[in-house]
Amino acid sequence: MTAAYPTGTFPATFIGGAAGLWRIDRSTAIAGGEPLPRAERLEVREGIAPTSGGVWRLAGVAGHTRYVGRAEKTALDAASPPLGRPEATMAALIPIRKSPAWWAMPQDERRAIFEARSHHIADSMKFLPRIARRLYHARDLGQPFDFLTWFEFAPEHAGAFDELVAMLRAREEWTYVERELDIRLTR
Amino acid sequence: MTAAYPTGTFPATFIGGAAGLWRIDRSTAIAGGEPLPRAERLEVREGIAPTSGGVWRLAGVAGHTRYVGRAEKTALDAASPPLGRPEATMAALIPIRKSPAWWAMPQDERRAIFEARSHHIADSMKFLPRIARRLYHARDLGQPFDFLTWFEFAPEHAGAFDELVAMLRAREEWTYVERELDIRLTR
Repeated sequence: MTAAYPTGTFPATFIGGAAGLWRIDRSTAIAGGEPLPRAERLEVREGIAPTSGGVWRLAGVAGHTRYVGRAEKTALDAASPPLGRPEATMAALIPIRKSPAWWAMPQDERRAIFEARSHHIADSMKFLPRIARRLYHARDLGQPFDFLTWFEFAPEHAGAFDELVAMLRAREEWTYVERELDIRLTR
Repeated sequence: MTAAYPTGTFPATFIGGAAGLWRIDRSTAIAGGEPLPRAERLEVREGIAPTSGGVWRLAGVAGHTRYVGRAEKTALDAASPPLGRPEATMAALIPIRKSPAWWAMPQDERRAIFEARSHHIADSMKFLPRIARRLYHARDLGQPFDFLTWFEFAPEHAGAFDELVAMLRAREEWTYVERELDIRLTR
């Protein structure tokens, strides 16, 4: 199947191995099973790489918003920094899988848990523009995770990043997370 | 990348070629460019087949709802017939790609066009339980279409199916469809 991704989508492959811009400082299984096999470095490759020389490989596609409405998008777009800022020498890759109960819910109920009850967007906004973020969707790719979220920040904001993930993990939305990894990186 | 699709997802590959349960009666490019190369038959294969002996190949993954709310889901689930009914000897495969303008909109604006202004769910409901349907998502797979919709119906409901597609094509939602094929089949 020749993959030709349309404008507005951002396919990427995260390859853990001996090479890559990012050094893997630690890799933790937060919920649901095994961590990934140990690797020294991470390469972020544009496109979906079907094979690689790495120890592990995760892929996803960033694209259109799934829950964000117009007012939220306007606020997010204005406050969100780009990836690749020179001062953002730290990163995190957080793969998660949500439960069958989450995916069985219709759109309105998932949105209600996500925002009305867990304030995912509103409360994450407070961490902008310190933390840059891109959400990759992986469920339709038959990957072991539904989402891979990539974050970049300066060392002085590492504490704020910890606060952000602790906040999200304490909310109702996270009761539907059945597998989660937390991979921290430095370049 | 070993694909392991979770429960609740239905990956499928549609293969046009010399083999398969379905005879291709006609294949029309409704909008935006070329039809698919001519093929006699269609095989619907479970899973994402990376290669095949076919003339053409389209793949997608059915799964969770993207716009449907709880009340709509309850009504749809009650009225929707299963695939594979013995009397449903006719089928249609309708691949579509929506425009960059569609995908650039946030969720609430897409939903408003889809249902509040185009009545996609409410008006399609009138055609149940005559027409069985499964929606495959293909955008995240780097496919040339965003959606592949598969329909099955008895010959006596072929007229109703034509009415359904004509109705959808006349609505505001369809102004965002930039490529569409219409493949009709019999078994």
